[in-house]
Amino acid sequence: MTDGDDWRELGQQLRVDSIRAAALTKSGHPTSSMSAADLLAVLMSKYLHFDFSMPDNPNNDHLIFSKGHASPLLYSVYKAAGAITDEELLTFRKFGSRMEGHPTPEIPWVDVATGSLGQGLPIAVGVALAGKQLDRLPYRVWCVCGDSEMAEGSMWEAFEHAAFYELDNLTAIIDVNRLGQRGETMHGWDLNSYANRARAFGWKAIEIDGHDFDEIDRAFAEAIETRGQPTVVVARTLKGKGVKEVENQLNWHGKALDHPDEAIEELGGIRNIVVDVAKPESDGRPHEFDAPGADLPTYEVGSDAATRKAYGDALAALGSIRGDVVAVDGEVSNSTFAEIFRDAHPDRYFEMYIAEQQMIAAAVGLQVRGWHPFASTFACFLSRAYDFVRMAAISRSTFSMCGSHAGVSIGEDGPSQMALEDLASFRAVHSSTVLYPSDANQTAKLVAQMADLPGISYMRTTRAATPVIYGPDEEFSVGGSRVVRSSDDDDDVTIVGAGITLHEALKAAESLAGEGINARVIDLYSVKPVDVEGLREAAEATGGRIVTVEDHWPEGGIGETVLSAFADAEERPLVVKLAVTEMPTSGKPAELLAAAGIDADHIASAVRQLVGARVA
Amino acid sequence: MTDGDDWRELGQQLRVDSIRAAALTKSGHPTSSMSAADLLAVLMSKYLHFDFSMPDNPNNDHLIFSKGHASPLLYSVYKAAGAITDEELLTFRKFGSRMEGHPTPEIPWVDVATGSLGQGLPIAVGVALAGKQLDRLPYRVWCVCGDSEMAEGSMWEAFEHAAFYELDNLTAIIDVNRLGQRGETMHGWDLNSYANRARAFGWKAIEIDGHDFDEIDRAFAEAIETRGQPTVVVARTLKGKGVKEVENQLNWHGKALDHPDEAIEELGGIRNIVVDVAKPESDGRPHEFDAPGADLPTYEVGSDAATRKAYGDALAALGSIRGDVVAVDGEVSNSTFAEIFRDAHPDRYFEMYIAEQQMIAAAVGLQVRGWHPFASTFACFLSRAYDFVRMAAISRSTFSMCGSHAGVSIGEDGPSQMALEDLASFRAVHSSTVLYPSDANQTAKLVAQMADLPGISYMRTTRAATPVIYGPDEEFSVGGSRVVRSSDDDDDVTIVGAGITLHEALKAAESLAGEGINARVIDLYSVKPVDVEGLREAAEATGGRIVTVEDHWPEGGIGETVLSAFADAEERPLVVKLAVTEMPTSGKPAELLAAAGIDADHIASAVRQLVGARVA
Repeated sequence: MTDGDDWRELGQQLRVDSIRAAALTKSGHPTSSMSAADLLAVLMSKYLHFDFSMPDNPNNDHLIFSKGHASPLLYSVYKAAGAITDEELLTFRKFGSRMEGHPTPEIPWVDVATGSLGQGLPIAVGVALAGKQLDRLPYRVWCVCGDSEMAEGSMWEAFEHAAFYELDNLTAIIDVNRLGQRGETMHGWDLNSYANRARAFGWKAIEIDGHDFDEIDRAFAEAIETRGQPTVVVARTLKGKGVKEVENQLNWHGKALDHPDEAIEELGGIRNIVVDVAKPESDGRPHEFDAPGADLPTYEVGSDAATRKAYGDALAALGSIRGDVVAVDGEVSNSTFAEIFRDAHPDRYFEMYIAEQQMIAAAVGLQVRGWHPFASTFACFLSRAYDFVRMAAISRSTFSMCGSHAGVSIGEDGPSQMALEDLASFRAVHSSTVLYPSDANQTAKLVAQMADLPGISYMRTTRAATPVIYGPDEEFSVGGSRVVRSSDDDDDVTIVGAGITLHEALKAAESLAGEGINARVIDLYSVKPVDVEGLREAAEATGGRIVTVEDHWPEGGIGETVLSAFADAEERPLVVKLAVTEMPTSGKPAELLAAAGIDADHIASAVRQLVGARVA
Repeated sequence: MTDGDDWRELGQQLRVDSIRAAALTKSGHPTSSMSAADLLAVLMSKYLHFDFSMPDNPNNDHLIFSKGHASPLLYSVYKAAGAITDEELLTFRKFGSRMEGHPTPEIPWVDVATGSLGQGLPIAVGVALAGKQLDRLPYRVWCVCGDSEMAEGSMWEAFEHAAFYELDNLTAIIDVNRLGQRGETMHGWDLNSYANRARAFGWKAIEIDGHDFDEIDRAFAEAIETRGQPTVVVARTLKGKGVKEVENQLNWHGKALDHPDEAIEELGGIRNIVVDVAKPESDGRPHEFDAPGADLPTYEVGSDAATRKAYGDALAALGSIRGDVVAVDGEVSNSTFAEIFRDAHPDRYFEMYIAEQQMIAAAVGLQVRGWHPFASTFACFLSRAYDFVRMAAISRSTFSMCGSHAGVSIGEDGPSQMALEDLASFRAVHSSTVLYPSDANQTAKLVAQMADLPGISYMRTTRAATPVIYGPDEEFSVGGSRVVRSSDDDDDVTIVGAGITLHEALKAAESLAGEGINARVIDLYSVKPVDVEGLREAAEATGGRIVTVEDHWPEGGIGETVLSAFADAEERPLVVKLAVTEMPTSGKPAELLAAAGIDADHIASAVRQLVGARVA
């Protein structure tokens, strides 16, 4: 379809259908859909290459609605493409329908969930990066953005990275309808303000009237011809275009129309045009990377090794075992040790600089195409991307994260680098796995398993070199725990630690043994899922006395996951939670562990008090 | 001091002292300090107006190190200003010293903690906004930025907002030393790439050689003369400048020098220049807003009212009661109801558009100057600013946040808008208070108290109008709870809910009463701190049987805070946790509460099973 009149009709159909979809539940964003309808009419009928019957065709283009609230438009496009029926369109926002309020990958043609503004474009950067550098296929990524979301810094991280990586397979379309939720945007219809910013960041920018089909057509044509840089089409549009009651009016954001029937009539009535969306021209197969195989690294029991180093070693080995493993890092690869992977597999490593939102978005985008990304930075800085991780769970994403340098035990750098909230925040992510290894051999085994875990897996690593306590042949399952020390039936108390605190717990147990107190020590390396059975066994065997110790705030971490393991148990142990309760400072690791009350001495003291109280 | 030779000497002193500070603990970032030393020499001796003897002088300029890792330079400036002794400088990074690895407000001249890159500039925007629009004093804000952190989107949120609010009292200085932690930055010494971006965002940008004192001097002079727009000085510098071993060398990020004595000699030895930093020229008093007084809003018992509406009503009243209360919102003020405050107190309301990081940073900046900000958006989108909230705790900030539209009960918008992790993530913030009111009158009382709470307080509000159950004269203390329903000594079970689930709990209790099961219902409106005593009393009175119910993931929320209240209690109740365990969809609120298993029917069913199992 290449004709203005046809496009006009199709645009009107998309508007009508957006209004109809929203009318039934009286909710949704028809006006934000209507502004971009003409842009989508041209895109879907002339430029998009997408085989709706084969959503997994690796050559399909990708259409990402960064302005996810314009879902009525997206679903109307699906109807016009013949991918869904009119009946299904009209289930919009109803319970049980996959036509949700904001798009999610429950719909097979949706790559990722959107609805938190400013995320679609950075994710599109990840998909485009996969296209250019991993899949090496000619698909294009089309990303429909709102003007309001241009205020999100994450959009500019995307602009920066897309230009840096010369992603000429990426086209952003900004629907400048001027009106945000509660009033005018910062820049209104000043298209130039957006275009100038984009150009300064290295993009080609084309300013058009988003309701002029010739201009739209020319802009997309220019976008696909542009080499070496991404293109943004900055389109002046009218919110609610075509319906006098709402067109370019304030206070119509996120509302169904009051008089949908009149509006539909004003737009020329219901249409049922079906567009034969072009199939991909290429039938290429995605590039595959050689995976000659490798052994996971091993570490000598009794030596000292940092789990962060083991992460890097293991990831590099994993890259040789599996060609689908890729890595991104936030400009700290010499600290996280992702640099070992980078040096071994430079084609599968992407430097994301200090832009953690873009880093996680890139991981989400890369996994859209079936790659398994590992994203790493200091654990504390992953908090920068928390909204992206939250949304990634709604996207049913599968990728792994590693946060290094967690806890007060990092020492001199001080609290800004400590990540005392990561276990809490990442436990509270749907589908997440949270691992906190205590030893280098264990780390290697767990890293290898992360690549097979569905959902979002997170590993917390430790800065310091800690004793290697497990042999290289020991196996560790996600969801398990390990009894590291026990006197079998003679234990008085269970101490639960992980990572740095496991070693403090072992020291405490050793010193308590000299006083005749037998402590069972559990390595809770799998914080989520947690080993409920193992914990319950230990509690039963140790008189219902548990001390938990964590290099983390008291909320939401190891202590509370242990408590949850017993919440509805018949026997519920007494749990003394040791955690960081005061704001730490700089100092030597040992000084800070002591000041936080989570070192061996404090653990021993807590045990003495607990056992004494019970024994007495 | 206005002479090139003097500046050169001072610059060398700042370098020498940065090296000396880092040499003792063999940690810190001397090379990132050395690059900016000449810039600071000119700034402190000619342009900065700061009374070090009166850190609270409202007319003091503000000097914010967005590149917080250059703390050796900042502390060397303090020594050169005579504010600290050489002895104290040399306690850098030692346990017990306020000269921490990254600056924190434990030092009286430090406004905010930095060390998570990309935060200093957005916070500086908040301080500058306070200067122009609230305090109405002529102080200036000087913000020293690194080039690596220009990759953070939050920096561009700051550029956007500073230009929009025409903050000509703000000067950013970018220390373009070319080298990040693990290699060259994206743009190296391409000053123009930074300057062009800044100009496109509406700033004046001046490119200079950051080691040429005349150029530095002229740039700062031009910055303070510029009206109507902020200025950025983009300075080409050498990392490790002045010491051959490290100057412009890779792999010297975050490392003390190997040969500090030789380096100090190369720089001309130790100096002890003391600069008489200019005092503020103004002795003006900060503007105060009229606070004629007002009554908090009240709602009729039995009517329906949304807690989010009560938040807006109460905040507007609070603004009339207290002149120090201000508000920022992320372009959703008609949803959070911050618009009621905006309409009542337009001079104290700042629209932050869809830029949640900048919104929280602005709140942090405004509270630096003693204002009490309330920051609001949908609860889910506060996750965008989680790293800012984390750092705000390290800044010992005092401000309030309100997250509206929390939980599956929002209905049709779907999971991207639901915030099922906010209680977990904000509980795990040091100093935080987490409130989740169940009723409009209660909301109003708690909003008023938030303005007096130290630290970071967070209120979760509900989209739907819910029954008003408390009289307008009832009092609610932070850290309390309320028994909403009880048969005194005859209760079989305790149900703990808050917000939307309290009303489901009440419905469940009503239906259970018909079956002869008496449920005590507790409103846990204060999630942190939690009412340990109240919960323990209830557990004791109800046979050690508790059902918790929350519109939140199972991790880190109401269930786990209840479990923590009993962790080391003598009697530990059996706790059945009801929470959202599967990814929600769109639907009607009642449908989604039912699907998540947290509506009245599911609560009643859980109670029956619990009581039956125990009674039987």
